Order: sequence, then structure tokens, then C-alpha cells
Amino acid sequence: MPHAKLSRVVRFSAAHRYHRPDWSAEENARVFGLCAREHGHGHNYRCAVTVRGAISTDTGMVMDLAALDRLLAAEVRDPLDHRHLNLDLPEFAYGRTIPTAEALAVWVWERLAGHLPAGVALDTVRIEEDDDLFAEYAGES
Amino acid sequence: MPHAKLSRVVRFSAAHRYHRPDWSAEENARVFGLCAREHGHGHNYRCAVTVRGAISTDTGMVMDLAALDRLLAAEVRDPLDHRHLNLDLPEFAYGRTIPTAEALAVWVWERLAGHLPAGVALDTVRIEEDDDLFAEYAGES
Amino acid sequence: MPHAKLSRVVRFSAAHRYHRPDWSAEENARVFGLCAREHGHGHNYRCAVTVRGAISTDTGMVMDLAALDRLLAAEVRDPLDHRHLNLDLPEFAYGRTIPTAEALAVWVWERLAGHLPAGVALDTVRIEEDDDLFAEYAGES
Amino acid sequence: MPHAKLSRVVRFSAAHRYHRPDWSAEENARVFGLCAREHGHGHNYRCAVTVRGAISTDTGMVMDLAALDRLLAAEVRDPLDHRHLNLDLPEFAYGRTIPTAEALAVWVWERLAGHLPAGVALDTVRIEEDDDLFAEYAGES
Amino acid sequence: MPHAKLSRVVRFSAAHRYHRPDWSAEENARVFGLCAREHGHGHNYRCAVTVRGAISTDTGMVMDLAALDRLLAAEVRDPLDHRHLNLDLPEFAYGRTIPTAEALAVWVWERLAGHLPAGVALDTVRIEEDDDLFAEYAGES
Amino acid sequence: MPHAKLSRVVRFSAAHRYHRPDWSAEENARVFGLCAREHGHGHNYRCAVTVRGAISTDTGMVMDLAALDRLLAAEVRDPLDHRHLNLDLPEFAYGRTIPTAEALAVWVWERLAGHLPAGVALDTVRIEEDDDLFAEYAGES
Repeated sequence: MPHAKLSRVVRFSAAHRYHRPDWSAEENARVFGLCAREHGHGHNYRCAVTVRGAISTDTGMVMDLAALDRLLAAEVRDPLDHRHLNLDLPEFAYGRTIPTAEALAVWVWERLAGHLPAGVALDTVRIEEDDDLFAEYAGES
Repeated sequence: MPHAKLSRVVRFSAAHRYHRPDWSAEENARVFGLCAREHGHGHNYRCAVTVRGAISTDTGMVMDLAALDRLLAAEVRDPLDHRHLNLDLPEFAYGRTIPTAEALAVWVWERLAGHLPAGVALDTVRIEEDDDLFAEYAGES
Repeated sequence: MPHAKLSRVVRFSAAHRYHRPDWSAEENARVFGLCAREHGHGHNYRCAVTVRGAISTDTGMVMDLAALDRLLAAEVRDPLDHRHLNLDLPEFAYGRTIPTAEALAVWVWERLAGHLPAGVALDTVRIEEDDDLFAEYAGES
Repeated sequence: MPHAKLSRVVRFSAAHRYHRPDWSAEENARVFGLCAREHGHGHNYRCAVTVRGAISTDTGMVMDLAALDRLLAAEVRDPLDHRHLNLDLPEFAYGRTIPTAEALAVWVWERLAGHLPAGVALDTVRIEEDDDLFAEYAGES
Repeated sequence: MPHAKLSRVVRFSAAHRYHRPDWSAEENARVFGLCAREHGHGHNYRCAVTVRGAISTDTGMVMDLAALDRLLAAEVRDPLDHRHLNLDLPEFAYGRTIPTAEALAVWVWERLAGHLPAGVALDTVRIEEDDDLFAEYAGES
Repeated sequence: MPHAKLSRVVRFSAAHRYHRPDWSAEENARVFGLCAREHGHGHNYRCAVTVRGAISTDTGMVMDLAALDRLLAAEVRDPLDHRHLNLDLPEFAYGRTIPTAEALAVWVWERLAGHLPAGVALDTVRIEEDDDLFAEYAGES
């Protein structure tokens, strides 16, 4: 029974800002550059979620695709799309985690990790801010 | 002497929100959908500027590319990249123009129109919010 | 009042086959090549619909985007997505029009032409079979 | 002597349908959604084959690229391009394996596995149905 | 009888250099920047050729696609692919035309203009040097 | 403390040629095909560099992005962009290493390996010659 990986992309548009209230404006600008600007900016994010498991002889699938789509819509698209990450998500509020691609990948992983069906493992979460910058998290610490 | 069009892309990441303060929250949501959400969201914008003119027999170019790049950096990228369109640009402040792709194309056109060298015409400004939504303005009214 | 063009993309996956029942198998293969194969093949189509009109001072839009999306879903995506063009659409049945990109662009144009709001004109329909082959129709005859 | 991976993409356009003759129409539709529709649909598939091995000091290559291209044309493109997977390939006939991206990745792996030159290993086969859905197989069971 | 446009892409990889032997090295560098470097550089070019005409009721096509592909292979891909534009093409030899995207679009136009079948017009030639720089020529002077 | 991977893309346009002076013209053409042509050709290269490490609780980042960008500009873009790999880089001079994607990935790895900050590991270097051919090196021998 072959085991494979299946990847599904979910997209969202969001605003964010890199800013630490315990740092001066100068320090924020030095470390975060343009991302520290006062009113934030935004991206068309692309999030690829990869799961792995045995290919079902019944359906030819690693995981029921409709179920995966429902999970990604509920746990990734709905809370992130057309949002300001710092202002709409408590985990990324100013003073808490900076909403980088790395941190978003961990955030998505933690939303999904407990929700996969038996026999299906979460393999990787990849967050692309644009074509030239992306992060991957595979649950390692 | 052949005449051709030359197009150059400049990219910027920006946040925006569709919101009219003279409308109720319900009316904003009904017309603007998710774009009306309170804290805004964002995109990786792609702006393609097309100029046209005779191809120079000296350089093989319709317009000096380095000069075009300087113009697009100064007039498009610098004022728009890593900005919140409503909060950083007076033309798109709440109560003024809604920062749609159409309105941004006009805004870019007006920034560039007076700055091209003799013999080079501004042909079109195209603003892409993402792969599936874009607007073009060619100076028509 | 500036006039602009707004383009919206709708995607669909469909099968098709190029085959004329009044031609011999040899003639079909000679003219249509691999596209004449008996059981058909398929594509991820990308359809860009461009409308033009005045930019509303109320909304910054050439046309209400939610209304355009509903129109494209009802008239383009629903009848074409996950379909076999020859077998599911009477206009492309064997013996009638061959479902090329050109013919599909005309088909989409005719579905949309009567449905746009006052003041908004249908400008172009573009059908992309893949990155390297596409057709445009602008209502000309 | 450094070891590297080399990936080559081969593309094909094919139709397919998800359907089990031992299930009712309702059960097929419930599990397979739009993919269960009677006449099938299709995609522009992108198949990336990755091999690994030592970089030859003679050629700078992990594997002779012309030989790899011949292999992919003969074993992947020719049997799959402009085909209906269920109707043209006995392995995906109705009642046998459902032609998902996962199942296609295994199919391609098995076609290629015995054909690589000494010192070159097959690393991964990746099948992309579109930009947002893809599967990888690395020979695991 | 509807008239439409059909576009076909042909790709080629080529090296080039912007250099005028009648200018000093300083002047070349000032006008052409990095493109003036002594040994040249290169691109993956994408050339989209658009033709227009009536859609044939026999084939659903504006032009026989196989014939168009043969023409583009013979007149565009074969002379340009895996070439150094200045060294392999007399029209772009040093002292003659600088091989810009604009000049290449004119070159392709002139290769194709006399070769289209009756009833099919050459509409536009578009040369893309990369995703962010492209030129179009439509036969105007 | 979660560990993640961060990838950053740097692009460059370069010419190259596959040629061994110790081989006859026939042997070069037989092994290297079109890549052996006398005057070289070129590509728009895309180089994705992946690093891995703990996500900083201070910045949400695996590595300071501005520092990574400076490193990639100095060690990858500046020496490779708008160059002829065989003529401008001693490592790829005729008679030495053939400048394949595999060999370039090793070259970039060796440029970067000693330059990463404490706690950050170089994970992979990926060189894409075009959309359909790419190589990865992860420091293995």
C-alpha cells in the first residue's frame, strides 16, 4: 500500500505590521525596515498544507479532499482572509508574536494538527508572502 | 522608423480598506463585502506601465529604461510600497476615493503623465491586485 | 469622470475533443492532430472577462465586483467547470462547433453580452487553454 | 564529489473521471463531488521528476539530460498526453484505480523506477493537477 | 461570422549584449548599465504572436494551429533559441541594431509578416525578456 | 521553541555554454546538444536559498531578513547577474566545471556556507534555469 503526500493550497489577503511596543521607533525601523511603518501593509498569501498517509484503495486518495478543503476554509481562510493580522488575531497583537511567514506557518500548524483523520499525518505547512519569500514548518522544536 | 510599446512592471505591497464613512456599517458590508472589514487587508500589487513611441536607432529602445525605472521607483513604488493606502495617501483617505484597482490605475496615470520625455506617450497603466483581478486605464474620460 | 477597464478571471477544468463526424478518422487526425483522439483530453482553462465604463465616484468601481462574480459563476463557471464540452454542451456537440479557444471565447461573450448593467460594456473575453495558447473575442464579425 | 538532486518537468493534458461502478451515483457524487460527473473533465498536468546522484566531473550533471528527456517523453508524456486516463489506460479503467494525483504519481514512479542509469536514484515524482493541488510519491509503502 | 484573435507562445533562451562600438566603454555603461558588460548575459524569452481573422466554421479556428506552430518554430525558435543574438544574427551584430525587446519584436514581425495564409492578419508580436519587462510591436511606423 | 525553514529567492540573468575543450565539436554536440553552440545562450535564473533554525521570540524570524538579503546580494546576485558564467567566473572557465544548474547550486552553497550567523544552518540551495529544469544541493557528498 503506497504512502504519498498530498498538498492543498489556500490563499488569503491580509495586512500586517512588524512592530514591538517595547522598542523605540528607531529600533523597530532598524530591525524591521519598511515592515515597521506605522499603518502596516499587506500581501496575497499562499498557504500550502501537506498531509501524508496511505493511498486509499477505495478512493485513490491520501485524504478525502472535500474534508481537507472544509478544514482549510474553516481553520485558515476564514480567520485570516481580509484581516489585519495584528489587529484581528490575538496571537499577533502588538507585544505578542510578530506575524512573520515563519510565525504564521507555526500558527497554521497548530490550528490543523489536531483535526486530521486517523492515519493521516500533517507533514508541512508552507506560507508564501510573495514569490520570493516563504517559510515552512514541520512541527519541529 | 517602427513605433512600439514598452511595458515595465513595478511591484508594491500595500494594505487598504473599502469604507465610506457616510454609509452605515451594513451598507458598507453589503456593497464592499469582506473589503469593508474594520482593520483592512492587503495585497502584493503588480503595476505594469506601458509607454509607446519610435524605437531609437541609437539604442534600440522606445525610452531609456534606466530613466523609466527611476520614474517608476519615485512615483509609484516609493509612495505605495509598504503603505496603507487609506491612511498614508490623502487621495484615498476615508471620505475620498475608494482605493480600488481602477482608482489606483488612474492615480498612477496622473503621477506619470507629465513626466515622460518628448516623443514618448503614456499608453496604459495596469494594476493587478492578484492573478484574477486587474484594471487598466488609458487616460480616457 | 475617468473610464477604465476591469478584468476578472474565472477558471474551469473541462475535457474536449476536436472531431468532425463528417470527416474520416484520417482527415480528423491530419487537421486536429492529438486533439482528435477518440476519448478526448482536458485543460485547466482560464477565462478573463474585461468590462469597461466610467469609474463610479461612489464606489471607485467600473462595475460592482460581487455582481460580476455572480454573473461569471452562473454563466461561465457553472456550465463549463468539470464538464466535457462536446458531451455536456449542445453548442459543441459532435457535428456542431469545434470547442476551440476561439469558439469558447465567442460562446462566453454571447452568454454575458445581454447581462451587464447600464453603462458597462463588455470589452473582451479571453480564453487561455494553457500558458502558451489563448484566444480573444471582442464581439467583432 | 557532491551529490545533488535534478528535477525535470514534463507536461500533459488529459481528461479523467472519479467513478466507482460498484457505488451508486449518489455515493459517487457524495465522495467525489464534481469529479464524479458522467462525461469527465480535464487538466493541464505538470509532472516534476526528481533524480539524485553524484555530479559528474565530466559533464557537471547528475544525469544526462537528453537521456532523461527521452525517458520522460516515452514513459510519461506519450502515454498520458491528450488521453482520457480512465478510457485509455487499463490501470485507471472504471473498477480499477481512481486516477487521482496521488495515484498518478505512483503510476509514473513505477514506469520510471527500473529505467535510471547506474548511480542515479529516483527521488520523487510530483504530480500537479493545477496550481493549488499536487501530490508527491517517493516510493514509500 | 465572428472574428477573433489567436495567440501562440514560443519560447527561446538566448544571450545578448548592449554595446555600440562607436561609443566609449563609459558611454556604453552609462546608457546601457549592466547590459553593456563585456561578455553578455541572457534570458528565457517568451514570444507571444497574435493573429486575427474569421473563425472557420469548419475547424473553429482562426488559423490552422499546426501550421502556425511550424511557422513559429522555423522563423522564431530555430534562429533564436540557444543563440547569442549579437554573434549569431547579422541584424544584431555590433554596430547594427541593439537587441532590445522592442527590436526583437520588430525582427519577429518582419520574419512572419509575409507568411500568413490568406484571410489571417498578423496582429501583434510581444517579446517578454522576463516577467517585468516586455515590448509589443503591431507593424506601426 | 519551534524550528522552521525560511527561503529567500534571488534572481539573476546570465549567459553560459556547455563545452569541453578536450572534446571534439562532435562529442560536445552529442553530449550537450544545443547548449554546446559556439556563442552561448542564457537564462533568467531563479535561486532559492533555504536556511533553518529556531524562530526568534524577539522578531518572529529564523534569521534577520535584511542580513540574509545583503548576503545573497553580495554572494549570489552581484557575481552572477548580467554575467557570462564561463567567461566571467574562473570556476566555470572552459576546461573547468561545466556551469549546469547542479554545479551552480554547489557554487552558491560554498559561497554561503561560512557566512550564516550562529544558530542558523544552510538547508538547501535550489537553482532554477527555467520553469521546467531545476537542481537542489544540500551539502551532501
